[in-house]
Amino acid sequence: MSATDLLSRAAASVALHIDGHLSDWPDIPVTHAMRHALGGGKALRGALVLEGGRLHGMPERQAIWPAAGVEALHAYSLVHDDLPAMDDDDLRRGRPTVHVAWNEATAILAGDALQSLAFELVSDPRGAPTGEARSDLALSLARASGGRGMVLGQALDIAAETADSPLDLRQVEELQSAKTGALIVWAAEAGARMAGADPAPLSAYGTALGRAFQIADDLLDATGDAQAAGKRLRKDAEAGKATFVELLGIEGAKTRANALVQDAQDALAPYGPDADPLRALARFVIARNR
Amino acid sequence: MSATDLLSRAAASVALHIDGHLSDWPDIPVTHAMRHALGGGKALRGALVLEGGRLHGMPERQAIWPAAGVEALHAYSLVHDDLPAMDDDDLRRGRPTVHVAWNEATAILAGDALQSLAFELVSDPRGAPTGEARSDLALSLARASGGRGMVLGQALDIAAETADSPLDLRQVEELQSAKTGALIVWAAEAGARMAGADPAPLSAYGTALGRAFQIADDLLDATGDAQAAGKRLRKDAEAGKATFVELLGIEGAKTRANALVQDAQDALAPYGPDADPLRALARFVIARNR
Repeated sequence: MSATDLLSRAAASVALHIDGHLSDWPDIPVTHAMRHALGGGKALRGALVLEGGRLHGMPERQAIWPAAGVEALHAYSLVHDDLPAMDDDDLRRGRPTVHVAWNEATAILAGDALQSLAFELVSDPRGAPTGEARSDLALSLARASGGRGMVLGQALDIAAETADSPLDLRQVEELQSAKTGALIVWAAEAGARMAGADPAPLSAYGTALGRAFQIADDLLDATGDAQAAGKRLRKDAEAGKATFVELLGIEGAKTRANALVQDAQDALAPYGPDADPLRALARFVIARNR
Repeated sequence: MSATDLLSRAAASVALHIDGHLSDWPDIPVTHAMRHALGGGKALRGALVLEGGRLHGMPERQAIWPAAGVEALHAYSLVHDDLPAMDDDDLRRGRPTVHVAWNEATAILAGDALQSLAFELVSDPRGAPTGEARSDLALSLARASGGRGMVLGQALDIAAETADSPLDLRQVEELQSAKTGALIVWAAEAGARMAGADPAPLSAYGTALGRAFQIADDLLDATGDAQAAGKRLRKDAEAGKATFVELLGIEGAKTRANALVQDAQDALAPYGPDADPLRALARFVIARNR
């Protein structure tokens, strides 16, 4: 299966699962805003969970729980990052951001409830088969998301905007590894964690993939098309932020992203050809236009 | 032990545990803001977890994990509720709110990281003894906190401010049961969940206690002293919100709160005199001045 087919199938499965899960939730703006924020994404993280789960014998009807969970966590982070006090973005996934379509209070609450929803989904007994595995998923997701993971990355990113000097390559790598890398690594590892297996190969894959993803994001920000991307571009240059493109040059960034994609594919060796869909996903992350 | 002794010991234990847990976290404003938000509270929820845990044979060194977790969850909710787009409060626990002491972005991020921290703490293997119990704690905490629990309550509370007509008694009860009740019930039940025991008696206790707590909060808001309370009072009357005091009158509210405290104490019958500290806590919630 091609990476785009894999992603569109994962996006459809996640959307169906979340629609079902939220179907009897209160009919109030916060719930509507949660659904809005959950829609329209690539579902890269969800696809990683489903594929990693498949490699470890987890049927999709079980792996869909943590897959939907990581998409809810990611959606919360976008809703809050887009707030006026943070990155102040109006457009996301080609649609108005939550605080534009509703208001700031609704965006704060919808993001908060999406974070709770993420932990609800990964902890559901219909997902990972043992309490140990579900608890391990929740603990690792909390660490990847919190003040030493994703939130740390966003805080460093905001601090960089007003710093006296731009970040160097090591600092940009540290920032990005926290801001987007930790959650991608979590998604890659989740299938192994569900099965109580060693997550090391998927962890190495996810680490390389996450780095390639972020370099591709910087290339997209510098050279991409805002309409295809569905969000505002050239933000980093306008904000005077150090990016991989600025630090490595466009060609240097492309070379490095390609090498990381090779690392990601190599890390899957223990799984043999069974992991070809994950290899295709790795190639996709540097070829995407959104 | 008196309720005030119980609470001050719980507050000290939670503070010590969280200080230790955060000791090697990044030295950035978000971490400092998290510590600020975690300090100075009554630790009612943490004390409920520790006492419920004690009744089920859980040593404090284990019960402290979910006790600190629920205090982190509660702290996150206060930081976000105080934001300008929400209740816009400057003072909390007698100190400046996070967005006043730092800024809005830091308050949003610190709240987000406190929510992640809550799930990290309840999922830690040094806490509840089995994976099943830890996963059950995380799932029930996510449900109590999210879009059908605490966030729903806050959303209904904000909606009530601009509604055409004030809420009736049933609607106020529904709002408060979601906004503050769900988390208090979770805290009361947590000790039984840790031990894999039936949480029903503690659930009944927590439900009655949560209702009494909210009526006491309304009485405090209407008749209390802002300096002792450490936060702005008379907010509800100014906002034209329906409260238990307005709907039942001051004497009616006191009578109802007393009846609920009796219910809470009666629910503890299966535990005999071992539950006397929880009975004292129930009496305390309607006698407190903050």
